Amino acid sequence: MSSSPLLADLIEALRCLPGVGAKTAQRMAFHVLERDRAGARRLAERLALAVERIGNCTRCRTFSEDALCALCANDARDRSLLCVVETPVDQLAIEQATGYRGHYFVLLGRLSPLDGMGPKELGLDLLAQRLAEGEVHELIIATNPTVEGEATAHMLAQLAHAASVRASRLAHGVPLGGELEFIDRGTLAHAFGGRQTL
Amino acid sequence: MSSSPLLADLIEALRCLPGVGAKTAQRMAFHVLERDRAGARRLAERLALAVERIGNCTRCRTFSEDALCALCANDARDRSLLCVVETPVDQLAIEQATGYRGHYFVLLGRLSPLDGMGPKELGLDLLAQRLAEGEVHELIIATNPTVEGEATAHMLAQLAHAASVRASRLAHGVPLGGELEFIDRGTLAHAFGGRQTL
Repeated sequence: MSSSPLLADLIEALRCLPGVGAKTAQRMAFHVLERDRAGARRLAERLALAVERIGNCTRCRTFSEDALCALCANDARDRSLLCVVETPVDQLAIEQATGYRGHYFVLLGRLSPLDGMGPKELGLDLLAQRLAEGEVHELIIATNPTVEGEATAHMLAQLAHAASVRASRLAHGVPLGGELEFIDRGTLAHAFGGRQTL
Repeated sequence: MSSSPLLADLIEALRCLPGVGAKTAQRMAFHVLERDRAGARRLAERLALAVERIGNCTRCRTFSEDALCALCANDARDRSLLCVVETPVDQLAIEQATGYRGHYFVLLGRLSPLDGMGPKELGLDLLAQRLAEGEVHELIIATNPTVEGEATAHMLAQLAHAASVRASRLAHGVPLGGELEFIDRGTLAHAFGGRQTL
């Protein structure tokens, strides 16, 4: 039995965060109450604001509080390159790891008819329309290398083909620091087949 | 570069939680925005409410939104037993692990003159006053077995002695499931010295 119902409520609510179980939620609640009330207040405000105001960009479908996200609105970026990713996290990963200066299109999912994710849910009509505008010269397909991601990639390639836009796919292969001995067969087969001239 | 300033703000604010670094904060923010906006809204409300309303119980100093916490207000609990702990988390741990039905007193710290934690900061005047009331027959000292915790325990024992109240201390010894081989010398010495007749 907790000494405070509000505290018990807070501990329960913290569990909506991924990877946070009962013990961690408890530790988090006590920590902010004991040591960082200002931080907790700020978090509460920003969480409420984000949930209320962040929707999706009307052009690339990523998270954005404006109709057009900061990336789409940025004129300095190359409009001839369009990189298609499954989620905003994937977009952020590419943005942080590579020097890519083109635009993005976020599917917010992957092709998965059983989960009700079809071409319409992935916004492919919006994408087709974008390709038809004629500005995009290369469609970089960066869906995940899973069965569903590959099926999605296949459909995207067809879409690019129909619009006479060149389609490319992220290279599969041995990850940096990986050892051949421990790499799964599929990856190794891909890496072998896609070997490059030195 | 993130596509949304509000999202970047949220990620930064999430880092006030213990054990949450840049990557985890990112994952949390994307998770709630994609999959659990209702949970996030609830968390924001409860966090704000908890920070604003939770203070300390005037009797035992634990976290409470009322002047008297639920435990102190509970007449069914044994008023002759008083367990002293360092923090509300320790109180909760004892409450969840043991069948203890007495009351608590929370120091909100431990004796540590260098950090400005003296008898006054630990509320020892409040505790002395409570012991003087005559209801308490046993003071159970459950401070941590650290140098500072032991010093605190020593002072608490003196306080109890002055009020002619019996003082006891949690037993130190081999933890359940522990192996003698891997236990530190101090603990083993304690366990040996405090051996019990079978």
